[in-house]
Amino acid sequence: MLLVPSSEIAARIVAFQRLLGSQQVDAALIRQNTDLYYFSGTVQDAFLIIPASGPPVFAVRRDVQRAEQQTPLRPVIPLESLKQLPSLVDEATGRSSPRTLGMELDVLPTNTFFFFDEKLFPKDRLVDVSGLIRHTRSLKSSWELDMMRGAARISDTVARAVPQFLREGVREWDLLAELERTARLAGHLGFSRVRGFNLEIFFGHVLSGPEAAEAPYADHPTGGPGISPAFSQGSGFRTLRRGDLVSVDTMLNHNGYLNDQTRNFSLGPPHAVLQDRYALCRELHLWLREHAVPGAVTGELYDQLLDVVRKADRLEHFMGPNDSGVSFLGHGLGLEVDEFPFIAKGQKTVLREGMTFAFEPKWVVPGIGVAGFENTYVVTEHGAETLNVTPEDLVILP
Amino acid sequence: MLLVPSSEIAARIVAFQRLLGSQQVDAALIRQNTDLYYFSGTVQDAFLIIPASGPPVFAVRRDVQRAEQQTPLRPVIPLESLKQLPSLVDEATGRSSPRTLGMELDVLPTNTFFFFDEKLFPKDRLVDVSGLIRHTRSLKSSWELDMMRGAARISDTVARAVPQFLREGVREWDLLAELERTARLAGHLGFSRVRGFNLEIFFGHVLSGPEAAEAPYADHPTGGPGISPAFSQGSGFRTLRRGDLVSVDTMLNHNGYLNDQTRNFSLGPPHAVLQDRYALCRELHLWLREHAVPGAVTGELYDQLLDVVRKADRLEHFMGPNDSGVSFLGHGLGLEVDEFPFIAKGQKTVLREGMTFAFEPKWVVPGIGVAGFENTYVVTEHGAETLNVTPEDLVILP
Repeated sequence: MLLVPSSEIAARIVAFQRLLGSQQVDAALIRQNTDLYYFSGTVQDAFLIIPASGPPVFAVRRDVQRAEQQTPLRPVIPLESLKQLPSLVDEATGRSSPRTLGMELDVLPTNTFFFFDEKLFPKDRLVDVSGLIRHTRSLKSSWELDMMRGAARISDTVARAVPQFLREGVREWDLLAELERTARLAGHLGFSRVRGFNLEIFFGHVLSGPEAAEAPYADHPTGGPGISPAFSQGSGFRTLRRGDLVSVDTMLNHNGYLNDQTRNFSLGPPHAVLQDRYALCRELHLWLREHAVPGAVTGELYDQLLDVVRKADRLEHFMGPNDSGVSFLGHGLGLEVDEFPFIAKGQKTVLREGMTFAFEPKWVVPGIGVAGFENTYVVTEHGAETLNVTPEDLVILP
Repeated sequence: MLLVPSSEIAARIVAFQRLLGSQQVDAALIRQNTDLYYFSGTVQDAFLIIPASGPPVFAVRRDVQRAEQQTPLRPVIPLESLKQLPSLVDEATGRSSPRTLGMELDVLPTNTFFFFDEKLFPKDRLVDVSGLIRHTRSLKSSWELDMMRGAARISDTVARAVPQFLREGVREWDLLAELERTARLAGHLGFSRVRGFNLEIFFGHVLSGPEAAEAPYADHPTGGPGISPAFSQGSGFRTLRRGDLVSVDTMLNHNGYLNDQTRNFSLGPPHAVLQDRYALCRELHLWLREHAVPGAVTGELYDQLLDVVRKADRLEHFMGPNDSGVSFLGHGLGLEVDEFPFIAKGQKTVLREGMTFAFEPKWVVPGIGVAGFENTYVVTEHGAETLNVTPEDLVILP
């Protein structure tokens, strides 16, 4: 297993502690799976108490032994009951109540919050530190970028397998099943973590033909028909035909780290409208690579990219069919699908080296289909550098 | 697509309204995906306002058109801004503030709760109605049982495919990939919804040999090694050997409804200990079928089942390796993995006709492996009836 190196864990905790201190938070109680993995290197039924200074306290309900195998933190304290938490917080902070304690209030269920607020820590003030956590997590180390490159290699394996399965008469759904198998055999963990409530991402969107332009209910540019009202997005049972453009948008997971990639494949020459939009998509990527430098403001990048599209008179059906387009062009990506930064309307985030995001300019044209490719980028001093290794051409299959 | 019939939606809303009225709640604001699907028949970015009496108000941010295709509720009201919600609640309840409004406080993020409590409904009292929702959802209609039988057919397709892929020298991980593909081709939606925070279920556990007995961190009897500390459960890269017992535990999704099934396969004669436990597992299933009748109390069933195991002197490594065993034998199942009722220690739920649950007595023996099969049951007047159609024998492959 690829364990998270202890130097990584140490650097992450120190960076986060600096933010806790700057906000006068005495300690954070980390509970959510993704954040536990980030700060401890393991996902267990556990609490990680990170004080503003000094060593963290890692308390594990289950499984202590596997926690010890995976985390460099010591000691791993067995947690028999939540009632132990207050005294563990005393120990970690070296202080007694009243204190200011941070929790992940963007994801923590309301009932759980009230249990902590009223029963466990009635004399402390509980505040939201999810912004500080997400800010810390938004800057990727070179080890993290290696993990994300590993995920990009899985995406590449999947994209390269497409021509083997994509042919006239095959169902979109069956193409999806073959690509998922390909991803799994290449080590894809199977699912992608999302922070937002009610957001459900599964594998991605393998969409074809005009039905690809079905409007989404979630915050994606593409929706797709799905096969059930219980999850009406993604692939349907449609049979592929000549002239179809097939969009393969995959979200793949290597050791917790994600890669988001979209490539387009066409059964014979694609519709002229989609070919036209694909060419503009490439221009937008080239523009982004040059302008997404440290110091750039994400909301301004969004406006400027939209200007490029406006000048080309291609705003219609951009980022969603009709008027349903989403107001982002890119989303931060790492351990979760919806990390900082967002290349989106009104965003004030200033880009820094080591930030990573997926950039997905797409057109969703009713009655015709979907066009546009997507890469996962890292911000470097020279601009945005793609982590994806798959060629970016629209692949025309005979 | 298999849409939820309007008679289903009407009956569900009426049953839930009776509970709202009995608790003096003026209206519930349904927001979570699973509950939206249950009460409206569609998953959209939406709020469903169900008053204690009178017609519900369905407000949809996106996508209104697809909502109209899938839900029998009319009208579907476009929701441009959350600021519309207070007046929509006025309309649904026929009352103005102060009122008692119910939300899903077991899943709703804390920050969202405070936004509703302080900004949108400052004069109303917000209470938790998740228990009422889960109670309503625990009684399945015959249409829902048909959906769950559909999921059981997918489980059967997967279990029957196992001998085709299970052989010496194959990696556990590759067996998993083939079975997932089989499930997807048979219409499995791909993921399973879970209510509990931090619970992550993916496909199930395909586990083999002694490594199958790795302790879990989540609330399952089995853990498995996994391939990454980011999700260290389920299959690993282990190569199958003669003498291995392979446990195929699948959680499969037909139109939103789940089936949970475990079957055991052995490469050659299985270890005597596992064979012995398998025989006792069958006795427990037979005992359950007879005793899980309407009126039975789940905690008492749990105690009595444990007595059977105790009398057989087989408590060691029951429901988890060493002392890590979980304190349940069954969990309610339908649209989510963790529904009411729980066949668990201390539970007071009284069984009623139409309740469904997975029953999974398993032994997790360190150094040897895992044994035990699992069915999804429905409570009938004659006792528990299995929804699964796969033969229950331990399959010994040559």
